[in-house]
Amino acid sequence: MDIKNELNLRAESAEDVVIRFLPDVEGMQSSIFDAMQYSVTAGGKRLRPILMNETFQLFGGEGDVIEPFMAAIELIHTYSLVHDDLPAMDNDMLRRGKPTTHAVYGEAMGVLAGDALLNYAFETALNAYDADVDTVRVTEAMRLLARKAGVFGMIGGQVVDVESEKKQLEMTKEKLDFIYELKTGALIEASMMIGAVLAGATEKQVEIVENVAKKIGLAFQIQDDILDVEGDEATLGKPIGSDERNEKCTFVTFAGIEKSKEEVKRLTDEALEELNSLPQKNEFLNELLNYLVYRDK
Amino acid sequence: MDIKNELNLRAESAEDVVIRFLPDVEGMQSSIFDAMQYSVTAGGKRLRPILMNETFQLFGGEGDVIEPFMAAIELIHTYSLVHDDLPAMDNDMLRRGKPTTHAVYGEAMGVLAGDALLNYAFETALNAYDADVDTVRVTEAMRLLARKAGVFGMIGGQVVDVESEKKQLEMTKEKLDFIYELKTGALIEASMMIGAVLAGATEKQVEIVENVAKKIGLAFQIQDDILDVEGDEATLGKPIGSDERNEKCTFVTFAGIEKSKEEVKRLTDEALEELNSLPQKNEFLNELLNYLVYRDK
Repeated sequence: MDIKNELNLRAESAEDVVIRFLPDVEGMQSSIFDAMQYSVTAGGKRLRPILMNETFQLFGGEGDVIEPFMAAIELIHTYSLVHDDLPAMDNDMLRRGKPTTHAVYGEAMGVLAGDALLNYAFETALNAYDADVDTVRVTEAMRLLARKAGVFGMIGGQVVDVESEKKQLEMTKEKLDFIYELKTGALIEASMMIGAVLAGATEKQVEIVENVAKKIGLAFQIQDDILDVEGDEATLGKPIGSDERNEKCTFVTFAGIEKSKEEVKRLTDEALEELNSLPQKNEFLNELLNYLVYRDK
Repeated sequence: MDIKNELNLRAESAEDVVIRFLPDVEGMQSSIFDAMQYSVTAGGKRLRPILMNETFQLFGGEGDVIEPFMAAIELIHTYSLVHDDLPAMDNDMLRRGKPTTHAVYGEAMGVLAGDALLNYAFETALNAYDADVDTVRVTEAMRLLARKAGVFGMIGGQVVDVESEKKQLEMTKEKLDFIYELKTGALIEASMMIGAVLAGATEKQVEIVENVAKKIGLAFQIQDDILDVEGDEATLGKPIGSDERNEKCTFVTFAGIEKSKEEVKRLTDEALEELNSLPQKNEFLNELLNYLVYRDK
């Protein structure tokens, strides 16, 4: 399987889904629609909607109930980047080589575009109630989306990350684990769990999916730290060693590069073993998880 | 009826409902829970949850399905103030005489607290699916909440307001109407419509409620402009004439003070007449709408 090619095809189709749900750029408030479009189409691997859809397929999910949630999870991921880039946060003017949303539209619109994307994510996900699927499943998916994106999920991780920045001495391994599990992990968990729930997976199966996602999310993040030290600037798309310059305390800081690599391998092996304990199979999902972790950018 | 006293009692009980749904201040991310608590308890008339509950009562609503939505609408109102006060927006260090959220917790936490409150509003509203009420009603209420808070509601109005600020020449009556209808009006509409929907009001009744709310929201806002020119600084809690100093273009700028007062009266009379065309009665709601518009602060 040419995983990169397959992944690109799926990324394009996931992007189409997200864009289809976005409001047209018209009317009195057209600038916010424009800022939303800009933020969403400024690139990205669309990993979360792809993981969601592949997990949905794994459990034999059918129909278009998944699409509003694919859009919603990408909108939430996008809003978190838009707010993360704000001057008050990371103060980044570039992301993936393009000017960030606040750099283009100004800081006030950066705040509002993030708010708009978050709110619109829920507005979009609610369309799933129109699909021909048991509303109990949709409600469970809604709850997962809200929980994993919020203070007990992504925002919770973000808060501890922001508090820890520039205070390297105060960072502990416990805090770092918390940040990794919530800031990046929670949306990966939400993606895969929502896919499973909407396809009608059992409670036990959803639990397995949660564990797989947790481990993959963590491995993904540690690999990110390794790449920051070892990666090639051109393929990575950001300056090498930026974590060290930003005094950012990472998994590599605590464990060293070799132990970090071992941890990535252990987590990935365990995740794939758990995934393969299920009778359901999705070859692409297996390849994808493996690729995600061992990617070079 | 001693409307002020009755309103205070209801405000206290609405505040209790909101606080009951908030996360305890504990755990690794306790600072965000603390910032949420601070933002929510820093005052406020709790008009939106009160209007929601009174409209619910008007249509004979029963049980606790209304409570998660009462909390949600107040959380959304609160997040909008927290983000509005940010340096990138209105840059306010004080609100209702107290330091604003970003003034206390820093700008990054101001952004995150707003995000947290918005996300948590949806997380909280989803609790209504546990109530013993037709899920179709709850889903309709969820859709109203998301729509009226988002780019076709409050955020849409906020965007045009931000764009118009400090560019008085470009402000038109059409833009001002749009801002008033969406920025303040949309959440008032959501409040009353959600109360009606959850109580099982018919489509026609919900439409009447929407019209009533639209007119009251507009009258409320124009009264605000009148008070800014005429009010007493002590009772108003903010400096008189601040709109003029901020070069803010208001309804009074376009229509003059006398025409503005006539418009408040016309809108209020029409709203109350429409409300009283319903066979259902809620004396307190009538008094409240009247009081809201003719308040002195």
